[in-house]
Amino acid sequence: MSAATARRDWSPRKRPRSAVWSAPYHAWTYGLDGALLYAEHMGSDFDRTCHGLPKIHVRSLAGLLFVCFADESPADFDEMARVAAHYIAPHNVAGCKVAHQIDLIEEGNWKLTIENNRECYHCSLSHPELTASIFEYGFGFDAEENDPARIAQWQSYDVMVECCCASWDRNGFPSREIGHLDDMVSGFRIGRMPMDKDGESQTLDTKIACRKLLGQATEKRLGDLSFHTQPNSWHHFMSDHIVTFAALPLSPDRTLLRTKWLVHRDAIEGIDYDLDNLVQVWRETNIQDGRLVGLAQAGAAVAGYVPGPYSLQTESQVEKFVNWYVQRLAALAGP
Amino acid sequence: MSAATARRDWSPRKRPRSAVWSAPYHAWTYGLDGALLYAEHMGSDFDRTCHGLPKIHVRSLAGLLFVCFADESPADFDEMARVAAHYIAPHNVAGCKVAHQIDLIEEGNWKLTIENNRECYHCSLSHPELTASIFEYGFGFDAEENDPARIAQWQSYDVMVECCCASWDRNGFPSREIGHLDDMVSGFRIGRMPMDKDGESQTLDTKIACRKLLGQATEKRLGDLSFHTQPNSWHHFMSDHIVTFAALPLSPDRTLLRTKWLVHRDAIEGIDYDLDNLVQVWRETNIQDGRLVGLAQAGAAVAGYVPGPYSLQTESQVEKFVNWYVQRLAALAGP
Amino acid sequence: MSAATARRDWSPRKRPRSAVWSAPYHAWTYGLDGALLYAEHMGSDFDRTCHGLPKIHVRSLAGLLFVCFADESPADFDEMARVAAHYIAPHNVAGCKVAHQIDLIEEGNWKLTIENNRECYHCSLSHPELTASIFEYGFGFDAEENDPARIAQWQSYDVMVECCCASWDRNGFPSREIGHLDDMVSGFRIGRMPMDKDGESQTLDTKIACRKLLGQATEKRLGDLSFHTQPNSWHHFMSDHIVTFAALPLSPDRTLLRTKWLVHRDAIEGIDYDLDNLVQVWRETNIQDGRLVGLAQAGAAVAGYVPGPYSLQTESQVEKFVNWYVQRLAALAGP
Repeated sequence: MSAATARRDWSPRKRPRSAVWSAPYHAWTYGLDGALLYAEHMGSDFDRTCHGLPKIHVRSLAGLLFVCFADESPADFDEMARVAAHYIAPHNVAGCKVAHQIDLIEEGNWKLTIENNRECYHCSLSHPELTASIFEYGFGFDAEENDPARIAQWQSYDVMVECCCASWDRNGFPSREIGHLDDMVSGFRIGRMPMDKDGESQTLDTKIACRKLLGQATEKRLGDLSFHTQPNSWHHFMSDHIVTFAALPLSPDRTLLRTKWLVHRDAIEGIDYDLDNLVQVWRETNIQDGRLVGLAQAGAAVAGYVPGPYSLQTESQVEKFVNWYVQRLAALAGP
Repeated sequence: MSAATARRDWSPRKRPRSAVWSAPYHAWTYGLDGALLYAEHMGSDFDRTCHGLPKIHVRSLAGLLFVCFADESPADFDEMARVAAHYIAPHNVAGCKVAHQIDLIEEGNWKLTIENNRECYHCSLSHPELTASIFEYGFGFDAEENDPARIAQWQSYDVMVECCCASWDRNGFPSREIGHLDDMVSGFRIGRMPMDKDGESQTLDTKIACRKLLGQATEKRLGDLSFHTQPNSWHHFMSDHIVTFAALPLSPDRTLLRTKWLVHRDAIEGIDYDLDNLVQVWRETNIQDGRLVGLAQAGAAVAGYVPGPYSLQTESQVEKFVNWYVQRLAALAGP
Repeated sequence: MSAATARRDWSPRKRPRSAVWSAPYHAWTYGLDGALLYAEHMGSDFDRTCHGLPKIHVRSLAGLLFVCFADESPADFDEMARVAAHYIAPHNVAGCKVAHQIDLIEEGNWKLTIENNRECYHCSLSHPELTASIFEYGFGFDAEENDPARIAQWQSYDVMVECCCASWDRNGFPSREIGHLDDMVSGFRIGRMPMDKDGESQTLDTKIACRKLLGQATEKRLGDLSFHTQPNSWHHFMSDHIVTFAALPLSPDRTLLRTKWLVHRDAIEGIDYDLDNLVQVWRETNIQDGRLVGLAQAGAAVAGYVPGPYSLQTESQVEKFVNWYVQRLAALAGP
C-alpha cells in the first residue's frame, strides 16, 4: 500500500476514498497500489512508472492500521501483532464503523501528550468523567499507604481483577497484562481491567453506550481492554465500543490528538447509541489533558524550570516511554 | 521619488496622500522629494538635510509603477519598457481609477504563488469562473493529443488568433506575443489573446463589466492583453478594465497577493459598472489559487516530498521563472 | 518568599491565593515559604526537602513588589527604595485594592515599549485623552522656540511647578525630581508634577475618579507622582488612584503590557468611582502606544531601516534607558 504523496500535488488532508485517487492541483491520478495511471500534458518522453507514489510501510493488526515512514519498519512488529491480535480480535474491528472523530490541537510537545497518557497519577484531580468508570488502583498504589479503608479497597480491587480475568479468559476474551514497553522496538502493553460501578463501558453512567455489542461479545461487562503502543497510540476496547487515539506532532510545541470512536457497523445513531453519550467521557478527558499538556509545555519553557523525579508507583510507564525514546535516539545516532 | 522610510517613524502601511507626508510617531514631515521639511525639538545642531527619506528606484511604465529596492536597478528596464509601453499605452492607465483592491494572504512561499500564476495546467480543474472567458489552448497543447474533436478545436483556435491579432494590430492595439522571461533581468512576456464566447472581458458572461471603455478603445472585443513580469507581477488589460497583481512575501511561508481592478476614471459604480460583476472572476480565481498554493506549501514541507518534472507543454513559463530566479541568485552570489 | 515554580507542575498563570498552593497536575502542595508539604505516591525514598520551590528575590518598596530572577539581586536596590519610599508611602499602597487590570499584547520588542514610555515627544500627536491632564512642558522644551505665546506658557509652567512643589513638600508629599536612570543598577526617576486644568487626576475631565482619597491625602490636587524604574516598570500616583505598569517580553517581537488601577480598598465601584471613568485615559493611551510600538517594530524590521538620533530635548530618558541597557549587557558579557 502506498502513501498519498503525489509529487508537489501532495495534500496531507486528502486521502483516497475510491479505487483511484486524483491529486487536486494537476489531476495526476493514481491507483490504489500507488501507480501513476494518468497525467495529462506530460509528453511522450514522460515515463509514468517513475512517478508513482512512494511506498511506505503499512500493517494491519487485527484491523488497526499502523504506518511507518522509516526506510525499514521494526523487525519485531510481528511479535507484538501475534500477542495483541489474540486480545483484540474478539472485538472485531473490521466489523466496526467510525461513529465520530475529534481532532484536538494541544499546545505542547507530543512527548508531553504521551507522558500524560502513560500515568493516571493526575486522574483523580483532573478527570471526573473518566474516573466514573476506571479504578485508580489499576495504575499503581502507594506502598506506604496506611489508611485501612484505602488498603481494604485496594485488596478488594485485586480480588476483583483475579475473579474477572479468570471469567473473561474462560469466555474467549484474554485479559492478563503483558508489557514490553521498553524492551522491544514495537513497544506495547496490553491487558484487560475491570471497571467501577456497573463496569460496562467508559461512559458517565458506566453502562454501555451502544446496544449492539461488538464481535463475539455476548456480555456487557468485558472491562476495558487497553492497548498502548510506542511511541504515539493508545486504544480502549469495551463490549460495545472502541476508542482509539493517535498523537501527531505538528511542530515542536503543538500536537494533534486524533480520537476516533468505533461502534458496530450496523448500529444506528439515535437508536442504538446516543452520540453525545458515546463520546462525552473521552471528549472531556482529552480537553482536560490538553490543558495539562499546555501547562507542562509553558512550565518547561521557563528559564527557571528544574526537572523532578517520576513517581515510582504511578509513573513507571512514563519512565518506560522515556527509556524507549532514548533507546531509539541512540539507535539513530549509531555507535 | 522617495520611499516612505522615515527613521524609526517608518510605517509600511502609510503612504503620502498629499504633497507632504508626516510620520505618525513624532510628526517628522517630508516633501514629495523625500526631503525632511520639519522635525520639532531636534535642537540647533540637527542637520535636516542628513535625515531625508532614502531614495529608491521607481519607474513608470505607461502608468504602471515599478519599484526596485536594490542599490542598482536593472539596466535593461528601459528595453522592457520600450516594448511593453507600445502594447499598454492604448489602454491609458493614467486615465483609470482603482475601483477595488483585495489583499489576500496565501499560506505559501511567494515562489509557489508565481509558479501557480505561470501555468494554466491547473485551470480546467480549479477555475470555473476564469475558464468561462480564457482558452486553455493559449497555454500549451498536448502534442500527443489524438481526440479529433480537441484537435479541431485547437486548430480553429489558432486560426482565431491569427485573425484577431491582424485586426487588432491594424486598429492600433498591438498583439503579437513577445517573451523574454529568462533572457533579461527585467524578464517579461506580453501578448494579446482572444477570449471565448462573447470574448469581451474576463467576466462570468464574457461581456464587458464597465460601459466606459478605456483609452483609445472603441471596440469591446480587444481580447486579453496579458503582461507578466519577473519576479512578482502580472496584469490583464481588456477593453473595459484592467486587473493588476503583485505577490509580496510576508515570510518564508506566507505571501500577500494584492489585486487591483482599474476602470475608466469617469466610470460611476452602479451606473457604468457593477462592482461585484467586475471583481467576481479574479476574486474567486485568487481564492482557488491560494488554496492550491497552501496545499503545495504543505506538501513540500513533508519529509517524504519528492520534486517531479514540469510539463514541457503547459509549464514552460514555470521553468523560465525558475531559470530566472536561479540566474538572479547566481548573480548575487558572484563568480 | 518563593516563586510558583513547581517541578513540571509549574504554571505561570497560577499563583498562590491561600496559605498553601497546590500544583494543578499532580497536586504537589507547597507552603508559602516554598516548602513541599505534600506529594502523593512518591515512595519512602523521596526527600520532600529537596523538592521545594526555587527561591527568587522579591522585595516590597512601600507596597510595590519587585521581583528579580537573577542569582544575585541588585546591590543598590535599598538605595532606590530608601529614596522612593519617602515619596510613595503617603499614598499608602497597602491600603489599596486593584480595581481593574488590563493585559495588552503589543506587537513589538519590549524595549520599544519602554522607549515609547520614556518620552512624550509623541504625546501631543497621539494621546488626546492623556494630554487633557499632563503638560508637555514637563518632558522637555525646545530651546530654539521663538513663539512668544509658547515661551510665556513654558515660563508660567515653571512658576507653577515651583509653587506647587513647595506646597506639596510642606504638606508631607515630597515632590522634587530625583533621577538615577543610568548611574545605578536599580535605575529610577521619581518626581511629582502639576497637571493641567483642575489638575486633580489623570482623567478626561482632570477631576478625581474616586471620592475616597488615598493614604494621608486630604487635598485632591496632589499632582502626578511618577516613578519610572529600569528596565520595565512605571507608575503614576495621584490623590485618588494609582496606575502601575509592567512590560513583560513574550518573544523578541511581542510584549505583554500589564496595567493595574488601584483605589482605596474601601472604595465601592459605582458609588465612590465609575470604573470606565477611572480606566479610560490609560486604557486608550496604552492602545495608542501599542499601535506606535507595532509600527516601530514593523519599520525596524524592514531592510531599508536606518536608525536616527533621539531628540536631546524630549528624549533624554530614552537615551538613558539605552545607556542602562548597554551597561547591563556589558556587565553580563564581563571584561
